[in-house]
Amino acid sequence: MSDLLDTIRDLAKPTDSKILMVVLDGVGGLPLETNGDTELAAATTPNLDALAAQSQLGQIELVGAGITPGSGPGHLSLFGYDPLKYIVGRGALSAVGIGVKLGAGDVAVRGNFATLGADRIVQDRRAGRPSDEKNAEIVTKLKAAIPDIDGTPVEIYTESEHRFVVVFRANGGSPLGANLSDVDPQATGVQPMTAQAHDDASQKTADLVNAFVQRAETALKDETQVNGVLFRGYSDVPHFPSFDAAYQLKAACIASYPMYKGLASLVGMDVLTVEGEEDALDGKVQALRDNWSKYDFFYFHVKKTDSTGEDGDFKAKVKKIELFDALLPQLLALNPDVIAIVGDHSTPSKLATHSWHPVPLLIRSNYGRKDLAQRYTEDEALKGSLGLRKGTDLMPLLMANALKLNKYGA
Amino acid sequence: MSDLLDTIRDLAKPTDSKILMVVLDGVGGLPLETNGDTELAAATTPNLDALAAQSQLGQIELVGAGITPGSGPGHLSLFGYDPLKYIVGRGALSAVGIGVKLGAGDVAVRGNFATLGADRIVQDRRAGRPSDEKNAEIVTKLKAAIPDIDGTPVEIYTESEHRFVVVFRANGGSPLGANLSDVDPQATGVQPMTAQAHDDASQKTADLVNAFVQRAETALKDETQVNGVLFRGYSDVPHFPSFDAAYQLKAACIASYPMYKGLASLVGMDVLTVEGEEDALDGKVQALRDNWSKYDFFYFHVKKTDSTGEDGDFKAKVKKIELFDALLPQLLALNPDVIAIVGDHSTPSKLATHSWHPVPLLIRSNYGRKDLAQRYTEDEALKGSLGLRKGTDLMPLLMANALKLNKYGA
Repeated sequence: MSDLLDTIRDLAKPTDSKILMVVLDGVGGLPLETNGDTELAAATTPNLDALAAQSQLGQIELVGAGITPGSGPGHLSLFGYDPLKYIVGRGALSAVGIGVKLGAGDVAVRGNFATLGADRIVQDRRAGRPSDEKNAEIVTKLKAAIPDIDGTPVEIYTESEHRFVVVFRANGGSPLGANLSDVDPQATGVQPMTAQAHDDASQKTADLVNAFVQRAETALKDETQVNGVLFRGYSDVPHFPSFDAAYQLKAACIASYPMYKGLASLVGMDVLTVEGEEDALDGKVQALRDNWSKYDFFYFHVKKTDSTGEDGDFKAKVKKIELFDALLPQLLALNPDVIAIVGDHSTPSKLATHSWHPVPLLIRSNYGRKDLAQRYTEDEALKGSLGLRKGTDLMPLLMANALKLNKYGA
Repeated sequence: MSDLLDTIRDLAKPTDSKILMVVLDGVGGLPLETNGDTELAAATTPNLDALAAQSQLGQIELVGAGITPGSGPGHLSLFGYDPLKYIVGRGALSAVGIGVKLGAGDVAVRGNFATLGADRIVQDRRAGRPSDEKNAEIVTKLKAAIPDIDGTPVEIYTESEHRFVVVFRANGGSPLGANLSDVDPQATGVQPMTAQAHDDASQKTADLVNAFVQRAETALKDETQVNGVLFRGYSDVPHFPSFDAAYQLKAACIASYPMYKGLASLVGMDVLTVEGEEDALDGKVQALRDNWSKYDFFYFHVKKTDSTGEDGDFKAKVKKIELFDALLPQLLALNPDVIAIVGDHSTPSKLATHSWHPVPLLIRSNYGRKDLAQRYTEDEALKGSLGLRKGTDLMPLLMANALKLNKYGA
């Protein structure tokens, strides 16, 4: 079905102008008490305030009214892909999250290590949440025990704690289907389930999955806690138009965490190297500066605004916002033709998790109207000239403000 | 095609939280003079004002820009069913409005009593708007004259004034089609039309309709005014997902008038008994209180805000709004986790009929942002944080605010 993305593709033209999309992960918040300040409102942000006074503000809803976006759908929406239409399965999301590329016909599966008792009864679906080191040790054992299954190459990757990823490679043979039932019973006190194919193309995948489960249990039989595997979420490579094809943009991703790099890579952005630990804001600015001349679109990701929200730590989230504010002048010094400040979803400390609330949006370009919003906060954004929009409206707005879109029709 | 309802169905989870949706029928209004007050703005509403100060406000458009909703589409939209996709035909709406259930293969037809002159020329399409008593007397005559047509059971019901409903029962035989042309010429000075089937399945229905018209005219030949019947709007039973399946909500309807009870019943709500005459506000509050522990969603309908608007009586509508305001503390005393105040359409006294204007929306929950709107009025709603939304956004927003929706995607 046709969507706005198809129209944009027909109108997009390459130009020298540069777009900088800053994603403050989970930046939208809530007041702790009725009519109180959100994290953004409570933060002291002189640089953001000064930028807001010259910018257009509004709000975006990433998926739909009342829908709380996961990071995958939230980002896809920011990148212009309708997240109700472009689905990235859990397996593929995990795979891209650890930097594994999927080819046509391959299937990625998301796995949990589990503790099985007598008669294979699931006692703990997360095997006591092993350390990443223990996870890596188990993965090494499994790699040795299961290099392939009847000639189909099998790759096994550590994700974190109890989570791992298996990729079955089609290896030039028939494409593997991803339409089969879970092994994870999503309950304790019962046995793991046997995967059942839901179509012919997935029969071989089901056989592979069931064989993997059996061989893994044999390989792990001397382990006391991490002695079983559960699978949930199978995916083949998602098919959707690349960022480059959609927008004629040479695009770069500046992010630290695997998942965001994976998503950007999935839509065809170049993933730049960022020096430093964790959120590595200085390393990100350096990467941006070093590559400024080479790209015309930058996705710049800041993670800690979300993590602190997830921790339910209002003050810490305020601090992370202020930390970004201190960094902002370095971004502005590069003189992007268009800069956007936005989030992929809200993560109010009050809820300590993602939420459905719209995210404030700021766009500065040379082509804005007078705007009544004076700060980049949720309530000031209500006065902004951009209004409340779908997340997928963002890319067209940025493209337009960068004068990268031809007129539609004569 | 997939719509938001499908997504919500996948995300909905049952919880203990309670949602109260108050529908003030036709509550949106217009000022009598440019820049004057609407009925809501003119009303003295201390309780609504206090609630608004702690709530999120916005506006909803029930069907689409410029579209004036009937009560059926208006309510379906509030309940989350896109009224351009989920169609309840006039016949079915009339049937549910008088409490008649339709089975698979049955067809309900909406009829008008008419006055026919010489050569069956329609003189009055409403037969001089007979009293309900006269209507019932005519229906009794018709029932005696037409208990069935060639073995197909025929049921005839009084609606009100000149309106009646006929249900043809498939009775275990082939389903009756509802795709046929009207008998009502929608003009005077011409004869009633002969119903024509538009598909094979509707041929039998057309034969039944045409036979009914003929036998009714024979049965009513001694009547001077009510001596003909016109049909317009045929419907089979509407198929759409039940409220329970869509939202995992145990839902109750508190309404007095048949049409609203019928609509609620159509989507699968339990219709609670309300004691009292007409709008019976006290009876409604009692029903709400008595059943508060038994349900997690309540649709609470107030009718008179619409009726007074329909009468073109600005002052009377203001009074009905104030009457609801006086009742509001009793609703709030039940401590709903989420309360919404909304309308199914606007009915400005100035127009004395439904109108296309958006309806103000108020939502109070523990998870709202600071909101600049201070009253539940049309112009204050413009300042609200919810913005201007489609009616079908309401249910997802209420579900989200009640923490009854899982995250979409990882």
